[in-house]
Amino acid sequence: MSKGKISILGAGLVGSLLAILLKKRGYEVVLFERRPDTRKLGGIGGRSINLALSHRGLKALELAGIKDTIQRSCIPMPGRMIHDLEGNLDFQPYGKEGQFINSVSRGGLNELLISQAEEHGVEVRFDHRCTEVNFGTATAIFDNGNSESADYLFGADGAFSALRSAMQKTDRFDYSQMYISAGYKELTMPATPEGDFAMDPGALHIWPRGEFMLIALPNLNKSFTCTLFFPFEGKISFDSLKTPEDVEAFFKTTFPDAVPHLPQLKEEFFENPTSSLITVRCYPWVKENTALIGDAAHAIVPFYGQGMNAGFEDCYVFDQLMDKHGSINAKMLEEYQQLRKPDGDAIADLALYNFIEMRDKVADDKFLLQKKIEKKLNELYPDQWVPLYSMVTFSDYRYSEAIARGNKQQAIMDEVLSRPGIEENWEGLDFGEIVKSLK
Amino acid sequence: MSKGKISILGAGLVGSLLAILLKKRGYEVVLFERRPDTRKLGGIGGRSINLALSHRGLKALELAGIKDTIQRSCIPMPGRMIHDLEGNLDFQPYGKEGQFINSVSRGGLNELLISQAEEHGVEVRFDHRCTEVNFGTATAIFDNGNSESADYLFGADGAFSALRSAMQKTDRFDYSQMYISAGYKELTMPATPEGDFAMDPGALHIWPRGEFMLIALPNLNKSFTCTLFFPFEGKISFDSLKTPEDVEAFFKTTFPDAVPHLPQLKEEFFENPTSSLITVRCYPWVKENTALIGDAAHAIVPFYGQGMNAGFEDCYVFDQLMDKHGSINAKMLEEYQQLRKPDGDAIADLALYNFIEMRDKVADDKFLLQKKIEKKLNELYPDQWVPLYSMVTFSDYRYSEAIARGNKQQAIMDEVLSRPGIEENWEGLDFGEIVKSLK
Repeated sequence: MSKGKISILGAGLVGSLLAILLKKRGYEVVLFERRPDTRKLGGIGGRSINLALSHRGLKALELAGIKDTIQRSCIPMPGRMIHDLEGNLDFQPYGKEGQFINSVSRGGLNELLISQAEEHGVEVRFDHRCTEVNFGTATAIFDNGNSESADYLFGADGAFSALRSAMQKTDRFDYSQMYISAGYKELTMPATPEGDFAMDPGALHIWPRGEFMLIALPNLNKSFTCTLFFPFEGKISFDSLKTPEDVEAFFKTTFPDAVPHLPQLKEEFFENPTSSLITVRCYPWVKENTALIGDAAHAIVPFYGQGMNAGFEDCYVFDQLMDKHGSINAKMLEEYQQLRKPDGDAIADLALYNFIEMRDKVADDKFLLQKKIEKKLNELYPDQWVPLYSMVTFSDYRYSEAIARGNKQQAIMDEVLSRPGIEENWEGLDFGEIVKSLK
Repeated sequence: MSKGKISILGAGLVGSLLAILLKKRGYEVVLFERRPDTRKLGGIGGRSINLALSHRGLKALELAGIKDTIQRSCIPMPGRMIHDLEGNLDFQPYGKEGQFINSVSRGGLNELLISQAEEHGVEVRFDHRCTEVNFGTATAIFDNGNSESADYLFGADGAFSALRSAMQKTDRFDYSQMYISAGYKELTMPATPEGDFAMDPGALHIWPRGEFMLIALPNLNKSFTCTLFFPFEGKISFDSLKTPEDVEAFFKTTFPDAVPHLPQLKEEFFENPTSSLITVRCYPWVKENTALIGDAAHAIVPFYGQGMNAGFEDCYVFDQLMDKHGSINAKMLEEYQQLRKPDGDAIADLALYNFIEMRDKVADDKFLLQKKIEKKLNELYPDQWVPLYSMVTFSDYRYSEAIARGNKQQAIMDEVLSRPGIEENWEGLDFGEIVKSLK
């Protein structure tokens, strides 16, 4: 017997995973997607977007029983590869030996999740764009004239969520959308004529250049997807690069070792869209029998590689709470939003901050020295000192806890790094004393 | 000959004033209002809301040539009257001798402004609710099927602006709406049976009670409009007062001297709505040939009495810029938003902060001592030391400048007030030295 009827808006990554978890708990689940079924269009058309799947995301996929299936289509990235202006390379491991993040195709992963949801008995209705919501009856009204009532309605419909848009019109709904002054453009680095990766596939490549950066993630077909994060306006910006010649000259001086591997650069730069980067915060996430999840509740910028992981963790926490409360109910939804809101805020802040780290600090000597000292601290006191990046990426510390501990550790590191001669003498530090000062 | 065609959404206070100023500059102006014409409904129905008109608002009304007309329907309030728990009164002047704020009926002022706009030749179309905007052609589309294109379209349509709502759906529009945890309810204190004011009409009355407060402003008909600002939820809140008896008991202990003058208290408390308090910030204010003004651009909480004044000042600045640039154009609109955005943010912050001051600090000895010292400083050095409240209310310092100077002054005051024995010795302070430390 069904435990109740659930509608989910958005058959994206989070909506599809949530559908599987709810179905496994005995609910009747219908997943509504505004786009057509990309699987029937002969695979994901257009651009290939890569995401970095890490611990939190994998943990939720494991709960759904699909971790192994998905990990088979991932490429492990154990560290960053920094490219300097001369094309010199510096590999910086993300964590300990054996720790890595996973480059995965967004489109491919999404199609896999939708198929898994269907195999679990979830009904997926494509070409359904929600235009209106009735909160009292958890009813979604669609642009094709259909409407659907349920016991609960979830908005997993992304940064521009229709459910959230309806909530925004109700009284006492706090909401903010904030864009950063940089946008992004994707560029393709195809496999070499010999059919090989053009660069080392075992890393997330970064060309940090202060106010902007180029990054590249490997794809299964041996290409890389490169993304330029770049100011919209200003002296060096999307605005200032007006001709193919401008673009070529700029790339040749700024990313010299990338240019030979970007044969379509001049065309793609003007053909591919320039996209903006939004952060969305809101509260409450729950209104009557409806709730927001994933980007719909907390859209973040991509610089910590945590957007999908945070959304998947929402699903994990939601599943735990269904277990704890026996079923979805008002008290359970209240606990869900109270638990996850601070973590959504925390990862939003961390992601904004990490743009500065990625585009600027990773090329800095002090930053590298700190990495070395923190690595040592973590080796000696693995339970007491975990670098912030590792807490976020390789653990399931709550994001809000990670940011608090990270701030404390950073204050200590700032003091340590200001000591005279630290560059030469860091190995002689009293590491035990440093860890003690955490308390 | 017309300088161009202008549509304004919202025949509220700011929309009507803007219409007059634009018409005076030679534009053809149509004002669209979603409500019916209240003048034809036999005057403003329902509740009587009072606003505090002060220097900035008056300055803009003067520009439109209607200051004197409007000031005739105002009641001057030269200070606050603080009511303690025993009903004792303490009058605190707002500024210097001869300075006062003006209690004015929102509805009455609005009707007067609309009539003035019509007299100037502005066309006003009621029952026009804008549902959609075409930015390229400055076209507003209305729910009655009409639509109107113009050279420029202005959104003076308040905190829930339709123009802003359309802007929010465009790329890179920063937006936030934030509610405070307190709401408000209006209550009527009628004239006495003898036909007199129940309290001194020459003051804004405040019952400061820490987490909440009651205030009262005088009306021309010798009633007062009282407003209870009160938490929505919690131990003492709208939520916790469930019966007429709860309300009466609470008011009798908390606002004892007000109760005899509130004959309809128990009925009104449950009949009148509980309203929420929003702060809206956004940017940009200008998109193509459309622009936001007043609450539509910067809705604020009412605690500094500056919502209307800030909106009228937007109109004043706008008029000055028309003068400077010769007409409305892209460059002029850009200067308008760059000039006013920091001031909109500043008054939003000041208004949020002033809730704490009004409900709590005005009853505090240190606060009163600071007032005395600042009064003296201002007497001795009128150009160099102006208390924050006076800068905001009785001057046209930019709000952003007032907040910056106010912060500087507060830091100095905090130090002065921490000096031992200051309560007894403040008259012996070296006032010249204090003013010097401002530099």
